[in-house]
Amino acid sequence: MAVQRLSTDSLNLSGNAQLHQQLYVSLRQQLLSGHWPGGALLPSERQLAADLQLSRSTVQQALQQLVAEGYLAPQQGRGYMIVEALPDGFFAASSSAVLPTMPLPTQDYGLTAKASGYSGYLQPGTANVQQFPFRLWQQLLQRHANRPALCNMADPLGYPLLRQALTQYLRQSRQLVCDENTILITAGAQQALFIAARLVARSGQKVLMESPGYPRLKQALQLAELQTSFIPAESASGLDPSSLPINSQAKALFLTPSHHYPCGGIMSLSQRLTLLNWAKNEQYWLVEDDYDSEFQYRHRPMASLQGLAGGQGVMFVGSLSKTLFPALRLGYLVLPPEIVGQASAIQQALHGDVPLLPQAVLADFINEGHFNRHLRKMRRLYQQQKQQAVALLQQHFPACSLLAKDAGLHLTLLLPALTDDITLCQQLNRHGFKLQPFSRYCFLNEPDRGLVIGIADADESKLVQLISLLKDALLKVDTGLRP
Amino acid sequence: MAVQRLSTDSLNLSGNAQLHQQLYVSLRQQLLSGHWPGGALLPSERQLAADLQLSRSTVQQALQQLVAEGYLAPQQGRGYMIVEALPDGFFAASSSAVLPTMPLPTQDYGLTAKASGYSGYLQPGTANVQQFPFRLWQQLLQRHANRPALCNMADPLGYPLLRQALTQYLRQSRQLVCDENTILITAGAQQALFIAARLVARSGQKVLMESPGYPRLKQALQLAELQTSFIPAESASGLDPSSLPINSQAKALFLTPSHHYPCGGIMSLSQRLTLLNWAKNEQYWLVEDDYDSEFQYRHRPMASLQGLAGGQGVMFVGSLSKTLFPALRLGYLVLPPEIVGQASAIQQALHGDVPLLPQAVLADFINEGHFNRHLRKMRRLYQQQKQQAVALLQQHFPACSLLAKDAGLHLTLLLPALTDDITLCQQLNRHGFKLQPFSRYCFLNEPDRGLVIGIADADESKLVQLISLLKDALLKVDTGLRP
Repeated sequence: MAVQRLSTDSLNLSGNAQLHQQLYVSLRQQLLSGHWPGGALLPSERQLAADLQLSRSTVQQALQQLVAEGYLAPQQGRGYMIVEALPDGFFAASSSAVLPTMPLPTQDYGLTAKASGYSGYLQPGTANVQQFPFRLWQQLLQRHANRPALCNMADPLGYPLLRQALTQYLRQSRQLVCDENTILITAGAQQALFIAARLVARSGQKVLMESPGYPRLKQALQLAELQTSFIPAESASGLDPSSLPINSQAKALFLTPSHHYPCGGIMSLSQRLTLLNWAKNEQYWLVEDDYDSEFQYRHRPMASLQGLAGGQGVMFVGSLSKTLFPALRLGYLVLPPEIVGQASAIQQALHGDVPLLPQAVLADFINEGHFNRHLRKMRRLYQQQKQQAVALLQQHFPACSLLAKDAGLHLTLLLPALTDDITLCQQLNRHGFKLQPFSRYCFLNEPDRGLVIGIADADESKLVQLISLLKDALLKVDTGLRP
Repeated sequence: MAVQRLSTDSLNLSGNAQLHQQLYVSLRQQLLSGHWPGGALLPSERQLAADLQLSRSTVQQALQQLVAEGYLAPQQGRGYMIVEALPDGFFAASSSAVLPTMPLPTQDYGLTAKASGYSGYLQPGTANVQQFPFRLWQQLLQRHANRPALCNMADPLGYPLLRQALTQYLRQSRQLVCDENTILITAGAQQALFIAARLVARSGQKVLMESPGYPRLKQALQLAELQTSFIPAESASGLDPSSLPINSQAKALFLTPSHHYPCGGIMSLSQRLTLLNWAKNEQYWLVEDDYDSEFQYRHRPMASLQGLAGGQGVMFVGSLSKTLFPALRLGYLVLPPEIVGQASAIQQALHGDVPLLPQAVLADFINEGHFNRHLRKMRRLYQQQKQQAVALLQQHFPACSLLAKDAGLHLTLLLPALTDDITLCQQLNRHGFKLQPFSRYCFLNEPDRGLVIGIADADESKLVQLISLLKDALLKVDTGLRP
């Protein structure tokens, strides 16, 4: 059988890449298109170089790459043969269509996709980043940014100086029972919650959380494939320990005892003690999400469950997103000593090390007093903003309950039962607001309706605009509650 | 019944905190100690102030905090009563022992804890961070470190400019079919692998990976509670598609086709096509871990599976740990467009946003040409180091196979079957080396023995020291292979 010799007319060299790369891409395109049959021979190197006005070595480089990749086989003295072994008909006309466009199934955990990265007015979960001492932070970054030691492997629990600084802070401010060997630095509080979920339960096992409660905790539990039951939380005092189940076979209760999210209830000491007693009797882990206790305005935060329990039986989750800024993505998990190694192993399987540079910067920021100074300043500022927001909302919506007034960076405004709070939030979004519909926080029975409002950036003009938009929207809801 | 009036003699004010805090802590200590019975009355504010030589307002602040926390109840005109509702006998003598020290069970996924954060000589998985252009990186950090926009919420897929820069790079260098909307920036490649595992399979479902293979991938699959079967990978050509199962009901195959980890096999084009055909017929996802294709020294990297498959049916995992530095903790996952939103939702449930500052810095680093420049420099340097390491090891251990010679930042030296490579690595560790025992990468049958050696910092003195230590160690193994 005569061997077909191919023409190079169809080769098209273009682009900014080096010439041998252009030739490689063009040859590969021809090969993948199927126009050059298996067994046919390419012109010799010399012929190709002459035809294409390229140097011999340029041609050689491109051909050797194609040999290495298995497209061509060198034939001594005859040139390069198109490899016959390629599966017949495998290539379509274009190199970008080897496989038919047939989406394979993926697993569905019922998770909600994040809509956008856009930050809107009065968004809950953010901090007032405009007030952050950037110049100082930049100086600290400069101090550490050229240290090769911070570019390599990290200690399994996180940067030691940060662990020391944080545990000292937590012992003082939260009466935690902890030291640098019982804290795991995490890449944010969400990761800490997921690690806690994996520690307490395997897929199919049961855990409890609050309703209303934190939607992103619910998502973490869904992703861990846990069965979740919901415990009602009252707006005044948070979770009611008398509603806790007996012999439920669940492994853990996740809760926000210092400041219920998003309703603002604060568990009293006797509730806390009842809860601890229940957890001891029922052999439950408690996962204490202490997401904003830095911003109590009326009194110091309540004693932590972790401290009351002497560090046993409680996993304590903390965040720096609200005290510093969300994109810092640092959090921590304080654990009984005997499970710290396990938590770190889970983090390594899930994620690997937490970046070291921000940890080193934060350690200095705390140790040099800037953290406490920033907290004091922000506590005053947020308190003013909260008082102003409460006053304005109460004045204009006297019939609506306003929750979480005394602490934290958010407010929850309850709206008439017929309000479609999801659509309302979408409408407000068109005006630059990014509030959250309260019904998304309710996981039991018929959800209540309302708005979860962030006050980190609440100035009067935004509040007045929000109130005006809300009035318009509520006029359209037939509830008799027209303001 | 007469009400007991308590004495304040036992109060002990000390520490650096403000006076009202000291008083609060001391009172709380007394209350928790159980020495003060429920129903008893504290002396009046005035009396306390006089006894302790504190101002009235200091005393008031401390007492009000304790009232808020539920320890005390104000009794009009009589002072403050110790709350009776506290559970009897709940408090032990010390406040830090409310719950008995009874560790609760946690879940065991068979994960290996990370030993330490210490980086040793010839450690695999690192980069030569000494060669990193820190001054330039610092300048880029300064450029972005004071931008409030980078401190807040992120786009669900990551920083847009980085996604653009990376997809352009990946199209050119790896012929990927991708754009900025089909890439998800992850907090490192390990996270990308875990997200891929959750996308392809639920707990209990089956996936395949290579053996020998990447131990940290195995850990991620264990944490996701997947059943894992192992496909043998040959040292010369990586995974052998003819050994792939038919009708196995598994959901995905995880593999390192461009450079098998840690044996160095490179799958030929025809193997790749056979593999793609198999995956199409069997309805498997392929998860292509492209962890080091930047460091091919003989030829350009082979066409990616993702590119050959036109972007369908393949999840492509990339890392910046080796090209830049490990503690950067940035990676990416290139996905078919229809599942990008799902992957992002999994990332949000698992972790939340990826930090923005390093993403912005990296985008500029790529777009301004520094990334390609750094890659070219490091490719030359690593190639030299690898050649030197290969030459020295082959010279001194001519009977031992040396794998992964042609690409990447590691070498695998196979040792006699009787070598206890785990103990050997521990011994070497005492001399500052951090090699990995090859048996830890083998998941089928009797593991082979050997050392996985990082060459990122391989200079001649370290290699000569390693060879000398190895010779000593091998002399003690009775194999007849004494060098």
